[in-house]
Amino acid sequence: MKRVTIAEIAERAGVSIGAVSYALNGRPGVSEETRKRIMDIADEIGWRPSLAAKSLSGSRSHSVGLIIARPADTLGVEPFFMRFISGLERELSGHRIALLLQVVEDHRAAIEAMRLCWAERRIDGIVVTDLYAEDTRIPVIEELRIPAVLAGRPRTDARLGAVWTDDTAAVDASVDYLVALGHRRIARVAGLPALDHTQVRIAAFREAMARHGLSEPQVVETDYTAEEGAQATRALLSRRDRPTAILFDNDVMALAAINVAQEMGIAVPGELSIVAGDDSQLCVLVRPALTALSWDIQAYGLHTAQVLLDMIDGRPPRTHQENTARLVIRGSTAAPPPA
Amino acid sequence: MKRVTIAEIAERAGVSIGAVSYALNGRPGVSEETRKRIMDIADEIGWRPSLAAKSLSGSRSHSVGLIIARPADTLGVEPFFMRFISGLERELSGHRIALLLQVVEDHRAAIEAMRLCWAERRIDGIVVTDLYAEDTRIPVIEELRIPAVLAGRPRTDARLGAVWTDDTAAVDASVDYLVALGHRRIARVAGLPALDHTQVRIAAFREAMARHGLSEPQVVETDYTAEEGAQATRALLSRRDRPTAILFDNDVMALAAINVAQEMGIAVPGELSIVAGDDSQLCVLVRPALTALSWDIQAYGLHTAQVLLDMIDGRPPRTHQENTARLVIRGSTAAPPPA
Repeated sequence: MKRVTIAEIAERAGVSIGAVSYALNGRPGVSEETRKRIMDIADEIGWRPSLAAKSLSGSRSHSVGLIIARPADTLGVEPFFMRFISGLERELSGHRIALLLQVVEDHRAAIEAMRLCWAERRIDGIVVTDLYAEDTRIPVIEELRIPAVLAGRPRTDARLGAVWTDDTAAVDASVDYLVALGHRRIARVAGLPALDHTQVRIAAFREAMARHGLSEPQVVETDYTAEEGAQATRALLSRRDRPTAILFDNDVMALAAINVAQEMGIAVPGELSIVAGDDSQLCVLVRPALTALSWDIQAYGLHTAQVLLDMIDGRPPRTHQENTARLVIRGSTAAPPPA
Repeated sequence: MKRVTIAEIAERAGVSIGAVSYALNGRPGVSEETRKRIMDIADEIGWRPSLAAKSLSGSRSHSVGLIIARPADTLGVEPFFMRFISGLERELSGHRIALLLQVVEDHRAAIEAMRLCWAERRIDGIVVTDLYAEDTRIPVIEELRIPAVLAGRPRTDARLGAVWTDDTAAVDASVDYLVALGHRRIARVAGLPALDHTQVRIAAFREAMARHGLSEPQVVETDYTAEEGAQATRALLSRRDRPTAILFDNDVMALAAINVAQEMGIAVPGELSIVAGDDSQLCVLVRPALTALSWDIQAYGLHTAQVLLDMIDGRPPRTHQENTARLVIRGSTAAPPPA
């Protein structure tokens, strides 16, 4: 399991490792004759300048980091992450840049991993996902001056790239549509409360409802899993003033809700309308097919990689706004039952 | 966007870069006094030995490679890949090892990427997925002596680690179950024909059918997508001697088949039984819930990482056999209609 090292070249040439290093890096310190001899031996035994050596001389690692602070198991659950990664890869693979993926337990560990990767020059830049409203990673990224792109809202407190979508407009459109159908009791099953976009969407939901004169709507926070989605749905549908429509923060929870409604003998969409917050194959394939907020998650990943690669090339941080999600109407939404 | 380099230390200390390199690496060539001064400056300005430097001295990159030869878009489609990756990460994250993920178009590009990553010491070892029956990557891995684990059957022609599951036994169990229910016309919708395990499963299916005296069953090959799964189902259900049961090679195609049957007015499971070849949340959440070959894909990823890390630590290649998938009976299978 050996690779050619400069030590081997030094041994064959009968010179010091330092001399080989000078010769191979084109630095003064060895005679032209020695340099020539060293280069010939290096060629002969198949040595090639390693990334390690190039990094020492200040060039790049040709990798970008994605450090995800989630339990490793949850990665496989939501279609979102893999589609985002496949979007990143669509851009990165064309540039022969690898994605260094690391899964850690929390932001503290993420910061530690980030510091290490950067200090050791394993990454040229970083993609930051799952942004918190108060995010301890941001000041560290700024302090270390790592080229970084947020997959989320631009921040006024940091000079970082950002790729984002207008969550408020998307939530507004969903509420407007349900109200136009005649719904008055509309609830929201939200994702992780610590996440910045969860808060943005909840605020947008409350405001949109208030604009329609519908105050104090029910909001339940979850961890995005089918289990918590089902539990939230059961709780909402057990209320005396149960909602006639529920907005879910992703696709998996909306799918789980169809089954809960069926268990409870509540017809979808006849007695309950369901809207999924992410669109996916799931939404198209289930019955009834799910009305969903559809946006191009692959494009989101692709643009995130583009902004990052530009920063790594020395261009200033950019923000890029994705198209706002559009509501794709399928079989899970209809007018509410007569009061 | 600067990191502390040995050039800066050299400048501050008023010595050559070579002298700094000698001092920091504990090599002869500088006086004790100079070494002390250099070390103090290095500490003061926050220098830390980079991975690049450690790699040059023969230590590790703390990354393992996963080079996937598929169109980047397809990564997001099947739940399999993300669950396998989350299993890898469960093991790797505990060792603070990153996964270097690269997506390329074909095996030729995968080989090129592998050679480069290894030559540049960006990876300490590699996980090989989507094995072909004839796989051009294997001889290159052997030639380069990269520590490597196959996510697939052990090969007699290579000394590589392998983590695998007995596909033949799983297919046998599915066919036996359907035959016991009374099915005689059973078809198979298979995955990508170039893949080794596709061939193993097709052969197992034909043999199991023959053992029950049911010769020449229909087999349709696909690319694993919902689209081709639906198309294959439509073709099979349009035959005069249409099957009363179909085995699918993954979950997404089986789900697509439920919808095709519904479109064609064929009742599931009354007139058509459906078995999914991978189990997932999808299978549990759809209606009817899908009978599926269930196996622990996360464990598969986790064990693959374990075998690889052992090899990187210098232990010999191992093979590890996962538990055989078990058939989980749900609502999509029943006795066939009376003849």
